[in-house]
Amino acid sequence: MTRAVPSAARAILDGDRRALARAISQVENRDPSVAPVVRALYSHVRNVPVVGIAGPLGVGKSSLINLLVARLRELGRTVAVVAVDPSSPYSGGSVLGDRIRFSRRADDGGVFFRSMASRGEAGGLAAATREVTRMLAAANFEVVLVETVGSGQVDIAVRDVATTSVVVLVPHLGDEVQTLKAGLFEIADVFCVNKADLPGAELARKDLAELVGLAAARGAWTPRVVSTSTFPTPPLGIAELWSAIEDHERFLDDSGQRATEERRRLATEIVELVRERVGRELSERIDRAPGLRKLLDEVVARRIDPRTAAERVERDRPRRG
Amino acid sequence: MTRAVPSAARAILDGDRRALARAISQVENRDPSVAPVVRALYSHVRNVPVVGIAGPLGVGKSSLINLLVARLRELGRTVAVVAVDPSSPYSGGSVLGDRIRFSRRADDGGVFFRSMASRGEAGGLAAATREVTRMLAAANFEVVLVETVGSGQVDIAVRDVATTSVVVLVPHLGDEVQTLKAGLFEIADVFCVNKADLPGAELARKDLAELVGLAAARGAWTPRVVSTSTFPTPPLGIAELWSAIEDHERFLDDSGQRATEERRRLATEIVELVRERVGRELSERIDRAPGLRKLLDEVVARRIDPRTAAERVERDRPRRG
Repeated sequence: MTRAVPSAARAILDGDRRALARAISQVENRDPSVAPVVRALYSHVRNVPVVGIAGPLGVGKSSLINLLVARLRELGRTVAVVAVDPSSPYSGGSVLGDRIRFSRRADDGGVFFRSMASRGEAGGLAAATREVTRMLAAANFEVVLVETVGSGQVDIAVRDVATTSVVVLVPHLGDEVQTLKAGLFEIADVFCVNKADLPGAELARKDLAELVGLAAARGAWTPRVVSTSTFPTPPLGIAELWSAIEDHERFLDDSGQRATEERRRLATEIVELVRERVGRELSERIDRAPGLRKLLDEVVARRIDPRTAAERVERDRPRRG
Repeated sequence: MTRAVPSAARAILDGDRRALARAISQVENRDPSVAPVVRALYSHVRNVPVVGIAGPLGVGKSSLINLLVARLRELGRTVAVVAVDPSSPYSGGSVLGDRIRFSRRADDGGVFFRSMASRGEAGGLAAATREVTRMLAAANFEVVLVETVGSGQVDIAVRDVATTSVVVLVPHLGDEVQTLKAGLFEIADVFCVNKADLPGAELARKDLAELVGLAAARGAWTPRVVSTSTFPTPPLGIAELWSAIEDHERFLDDSGQRATEERRRLATEIVELVRERVGRELSERIDRAPGLRKLLDEVVARRIDPRTAAERVERDRPRRG
């Protein structure tokens, strides 16, 4: 597209971190004024590994990510981390992000950390997170790690963001973990049994490897199971975890699945963006625009049911452009 | 509206529980064939208390609900319980619902229990749950209890369903609870400090009462704080909990807030139904309809960005009806 490139976009392409942080906040807050920046950056986005790190609270995702970042820096790769928090749409702010941020070395320009609050809906979050990961790729980060903090729905949404999904578990799974497990199992490209120093870790790894073997299909990727332990120095399994992730990224290219998946994700993203636009526009108008207001009156009076009202609203929604 | 009343709707109005259960499943699965039933029932819906019971896992919501149900039966009220589970959109099924169901007396026709799986999005869930609560009201249940199982986002969504929101907490709040608390605090009409037998319960109650006092605004409802304990026989505070809920329901009528809130909820529901329709229709067409497919190709080729694509899709979306 032939549009003028906004200065913010140029700054981001030139590695200006403050411009990057500002644009990310605008995306997070769904500030429409960031649209030209997002547009301008899109053609500069390269396909980088976007690694989702999912799993319930308390399995040690943050420590794992700190060590993965360190490992990637050893390998000379620049890395950005996006932590997605299940904070309330009311209180907004990111609760766990700060704790994580402080554990990072502020003086390393090759690392960028950002936490994002999840605004109510998994779908909208995925769309926003995808825009942010693309901004980070355009800003020349070679790997993007996306951590989700303990909400099943948000974890699942990572599937629409990450090229490789790592699911972190611990030897003894409590009730809640069991609840999440089924869903998590289906998104995992790599399983990470963390706290491998705990009793039962080897059994958990074996069980998972077996489950994974049963689920394996010809030509498809068979999820890898890696054991890690972040407590000892040096920690265990971090290099293995990263190579399992790289193996999956290689599989995506060799199998042609990266292109298929990216197409599916972009389709999902477009649908979500349209849903968002429609929802935003309608929320503003439904109790203001005279026609809609009358319709709402009829629904309140129980003369028209909400489904019928929704049909009429959709039918009568003004076209754009 | 002058439409023929489907036999399923008649059966539900006449108290046929199997017809009711079937229709609820159809709503839960977003089966469009249930639309005529939903429509026919809408004009028969009465305003009954819809009590949301929210709070993190492990605070004892299920036991509280069992006791509230018993209390309501003592008072001669019929009651329906909807348990909303944070199950994954993949594995679908309701995990905790069954455990709860088994603890109920199957032979009491004045009680109806149903668990619903939350399909991915808090918004869609709220819309589906609202349709179900209206069906239950049309089926002559005098009180509807909605339990949400431990996902912050889902808890928050209860605000769009319940006329009275009860937030259940326990004396010593862990990290996760703290994370949810901010959001939960803002939806609570009644706070229930459960496990009041534990040390620190009285302090927790006092702290909450103080917080609530600070937040109190003139003319508005000041959330009530009730202590309960489900372990001793007889259990403690259940009657008090129910009267706090009834006080809030009375406030809704006296202040005229019931009407305002119901209007807001219906507006939100209509917006969500439109979003759903748009999303469903578009997901089906985006990689099939030639025009959309070409557009998606351009996005995949990074020649058009997703936001621009979304604008065009919305502009060109065919009108209905």
